[in-house]
Amino acid sequence: MPDDSASQPVLYALDSEGVATLTLNNPERRNALSSPTLEALEGLLAQMAGDPAVRVVVLRSEGPVFSSGHDLNELVDGDADDYTPVFEACARVMEGIRLLPKPVIAQVQGLATAAGCQLVATCDIAVAADTAAFATPGVQIGLFCTTPGVAVARSVMPKKAMEMLLTGRPISAQEALEFGLISRIAPADQLGEQVTELAQQIASASAHTLALGKSAFYQQIEMDRPSAYQFASKVMVDNLLADDAKEGISAFLEKRQPVWTT
Amino acid sequence: MPDDSASQPVLYALDSEGVATLTLNNPERRNALSSPTLEALEGLLAQMAGDPAVRVVVLRSEGPVFSSGHDLNELVDGDADDYTPVFEACARVMEGIRLLPKPVIAQVQGLATAAGCQLVATCDIAVAADTAAFATPGVQIGLFCTTPGVAVARSVMPKKAMEMLLTGRPISAQEALEFGLISRIAPADQLGEQVTELAQQIASASAHTLALGKSAFYQQIEMDRPSAYQFASKVMVDNLLADDAKEGISAFLEKRQPVWTT
Amino acid sequence: MPDDSASQPVLYALDSEGVATLTLNNPERRNALSSPTLEALEGLLAQMAGDPAVRVVVLRSEGPVFSSGHDLNELVDGDADDYTPVFEACARVMEGIRLLPKPVIAQVQGLATAAGCQLVATCDIAVAADTAAFATPGVQIGLFCTTPGVAVARSVMPKKAMEMLLTGRPISAQEALEFGLISRIAPADQLGEQVTELAQQIASASAHTLALGKSAFYQQIEMDRPSAYQFASKVMVDNLLADDAKEGISAFLEKRQPVWTT
Repeated sequence: MPDDSASQPVLYALDSEGVATLTLNNPERRNALSSPTLEALEGLLAQMAGDPAVRVVVLRSEGPVFSSGHDLNELVDGDADDYTPVFEACARVMEGIRLLPKPVIAQVQGLATAAGCQLVATCDIAVAADTAAFATPGVQIGLFCTTPGVAVARSVMPKKAMEMLLTGRPISAQEALEFGLISRIAPADQLGEQVTELAQQIASASAHTLALGKSAFYQQIEMDRPSAYQFASKVMVDNLLADDAKEGISAFLEKRQPVWTT
Repeated sequence: MPDDSASQPVLYALDSEGVATLTLNNPERRNALSSPTLEALEGLLAQMAGDPAVRVVVLRSEGPVFSSGHDLNELVDGDADDYTPVFEACARVMEGIRLLPKPVIAQVQGLATAAGCQLVATCDIAVAADTAAFATPGVQIGLFCTTPGVAVARSVMPKKAMEMLLTGRPISAQEALEFGLISRIAPADQLGEQVTELAQQIASASAHTLALGKSAFYQQIEMDRPSAYQFASKVMVDNLLADDAKEGISAFLEKRQPVWTT
Repeated sequence: MPDDSASQPVLYALDSEGVATLTLNNPERRNALSSPTLEALEGLLAQMAGDPAVRVVVLRSEGPVFSSGHDLNELVDGDADDYTPVFEACARVMEGIRLLPKPVIAQVQGLATAAGCQLVATCDIAVAADTAAFATPGVQIGLFCTTPGVAVARSVMPKKAMEMLLTGRPISAQEALEFGLISRIAPADQLGEQVTELAQQIASASAHTLALGKSAFYQQIEMDRPSAYQFASKVMVDNLLADDAKEGISAFLEKRQPVWTT
């Protein structure tokens, strides 16, 4: 059987512990989020959403660049009917990551720019190599990074987000950490190992609990605080009535390891 | 008269400068927020709300652990009718702290987990020992920290909040400071002293000004920016027409100490 | 012609690269935002909004203090009819900066307090000298910094905002950076030079792109995330159909410098 991985824009793998890995696989094009890549991502997100064997997702890239964002060749010589579907597809992928009932970890080994930076900001957790960098450089080519700004503004202090958007200059992994764009930094040569360890730890949790918790988190942050408490209290009670919480709390009180049903 | 403090879940003290101290007093149970503890806190919050002698509140704990959150023994072998009141009581305490017309300072000497971490995130100011740590570990026992997430998500950068919630791993006081969960760090052996100094400084302000300002702050952050300015401008005018602002501004312009009426 | 700059509360200059400079020019009164100063700022904002020669704005101050906020002499011995216009004028200036279709950079050389701190928080980007400091000290004179809190709470982690507001104590430039109030720090003797370099870089971008991007950023952050994506995608398409994006993307793909029409 021939290896056709070179022609696939996104590689998919699933290990025995439930860690799925999506690999952006077009390093020659700096892993641009071209329409075929977005389509592949959307399909894989839908597939993973329905696959109970997938417990946590790692999103990584081949080559020195994490992702350079949209393929600019798709954004010239067209009209609104050409461009609109590109941004709709991109938003579906970003929302697909947020709505996926499994945690998604970005493993950022290099430069992430424009919609590539948006992808990092959108994942639930982002771990970057200390050599990685982040930018929203659209302003320099006359195309303000407005859609990346939706995700960046929801991760990063607004003063820093505005500096990134108005100048287009890259920030270092250390700055990205300080301003909230990423969750943590790893030495470049330990990035894969640290992300795997993190993914495996999360994969060892109850899948039902992770799904319920991730979903509730992003729902409650859009509410006013009193409504958020009312909603969250109800989620806690539902959580407690599920088998995995019963097992987990009993195991904790009996000082033994829990055995999840999900 | 016998000292029954050992049997009280929360100790209360008020000094001559208006600094009230609430002490979680069940170190053997890691200062769990059991129903009796929540009930005691709710009662004390109501009492302090109406007591003009109380100008600022410090919330601290006995023993090595700040608070381990809910008492898990109350969250097994029950049904929705058993669990719902527990979360309602917890939300009333958290909202009671936010709505109390006096500043509340958390003095965090040790580990704060789950609803204990929520309590820290809920106080207006939090000062932690450099040896303190913070976690939302519910995911590890199948019970996602969804209600703690309401407070944590409103204090901490979302990427860090999600990492805490999805892994359950503790973060250090230094990380908690960087990500916004706490206001400042003190060396462990100076924590009490620094919090007292901070509380006394706040207690020296006009009680009317503090009440009006705290309330307006939490109201305006829920509004869109133009509405927030309209509301805040009206609050400023009301504030100026009150005796303490008249006195404070006159004293400042006359280079003398103000004498508050509240 | 006599130099009347000494009597103008705000100086205005525009260089050949499109960098406008507003200078608060009342160092003897610590650059208080008195009614004449607010009126001058409002007029200059309106003038710059309609002047295509202005591409980016730097807001700086004469003397050791950036701005001490409202002129307290205007806030004594009056009634609601006297005070209300002062806060309305202040909010118009703050909103005027946010709605100006050009980026505004605060160049903060010294202490910024109360509405002076609000001014820093309101600018799109803020660069401070390492010797600058920031405070919302109204509580100490009985007048809680409620309107400054509108801008500060939208820039800074809430725990730090509340500490600033409840204590009135100044924070250092380093703390201001960590907590998000400012975008970056410069050595005091390089502040002007670094801001000029930053302003010139931004001024080299397409004015149409900057206007569209700034406006969209502040609009989308007030929306829920799905609405924000719908709105932002539409803005991206409009941006792509404008001449400067066509030119910018073509120039990038052809590896040449773009020539903007705006």
